[in-house]
Amino acid sequence: MTERLDAQMAFLVEACKLKSVNRATLLCDASRRENSGEHSWHLALYALVLGEHAPEGVDMNRVIRMLLIHDLVEIDAGDAPIFGTHDAASTEADELAAAHRIFGMLPADQGRDLLALWLEFEANETPDARFAKSLDRFQPPNQNLASGGGSWVEYNVDYDTVATRVGAKIANGAPGLWAWISPKIQAFFQSRG
Amino acid sequence: MTERLDAQMAFLVEACKLKSVNRATLLCDASRRENSGEHSWHLALYALVLGEHAPEGVDMNRVIRMLLIHDLVEIDAGDAPIFGTHDAASTEADELAAAHRIFGMLPADQGRDLLALWLEFEANETPDARFAKSLDRFQPPNQNLASGGGSWVEYNVDYDTVATRVGAKIANGAPGLWAWISPKIQAFFQSRG
Repeated sequence: MTERLDAQMAFLVEACKLKSVNRATLLCDASRRENSGEHSWHLALYALVLGEHAPEGVDMNRVIRMLLIHDLVEIDAGDAPIFGTHDAASTEADELAAAHRIFGMLPADQGRDLLALWLEFEANETPDARFAKSLDRFQPPNQNLASGGGSWVEYNVDYDTVATRVGAKIANGAPGLWAWISPKIQAFFQSRG
Repeated sequence: MTERLDAQMAFLVEACKLKSVNRATLLCDASRRENSGEHSWHLALYALVLGEHAPEGVDMNRVIRMLLIHDLVEIDAGDAPIFGTHDAASTEADELAAAHRIFGMLPADQGRDLLALWLEFEANETPDARFAKSLDRFQPPNQNLASGGGSWVEYNVDYDTVATRVGAKIANGAPGLWAWISPKIQAFFQSRG
């Protein structure tokens, strides 16, 4: 029992590093960049509140768990901004290695379970994973709208790029959320001319 | 439906402010103070990983939900450091008013449910609340041990104060976790002489 707790606590102390991984997105008040730890909290809260907008059969408790662990790999691999240019295959390889290292710190049975949950999220095929991934894409545009453009301005993108890179992934798991936000994003870009 | 989503999203954008509420605890690497948003994520992850150490009958999905919302009141009331001197009755009143305002932003049925969950956490009587509260007390000492003392050094406390103010609350809902960490805390204070 003590040995299991030793391993679990080493994992939880390691997880603290996620609070020092910065994302491209700004906080809603534009005061600074968001880090991946607080982003993970906010997403889990999104799931807790927006469950009624998920397709039938989605298990919100599993979605919340997925979102709590989904970014831990960034401790090793860093955050790959969605509008940035990065080698997708290399990022994927880095993240997979990170997942094995980080979940591998846990007792074997538990590490295996969380690795499987993370792989399910990444594969984006089950209804739970698709809804979780949609929330992961839905939160940043809400913060960009609140902060006056955020990463859209920094990366100088237009509505069509947002619709292609972000909107399609929101709509994949949560069409109602994309229907709600897309006119707001369009209005933002129109107001900038 | 749109009206519900409008209210839910106003709540979720408001929640972003929790990322700007600083706590007394430092990050594990002592680089800066922890904020209450990333703290809430870390606690939910503690619950996800440490569920096997909870007393029988504790519902970890409810514990995770409690921990995700437990600090939202700090958006209005701020964080009251555990070793600080503050008027407990006044903090309690501020937090209750904050809970009504913040959960009151949600559709009425959902706001009522989350207010009830927050009140259950605060009352610290049900097994779920007691375990959640124990984790809330268990995480800071782990970060203090990692960061070289953190808030213990800042507030110049000794082992007995930690045992009284923190240990008793950890032991209340999670005696095994207090048994695990108390010798480590003792060793820390002994090493400082």
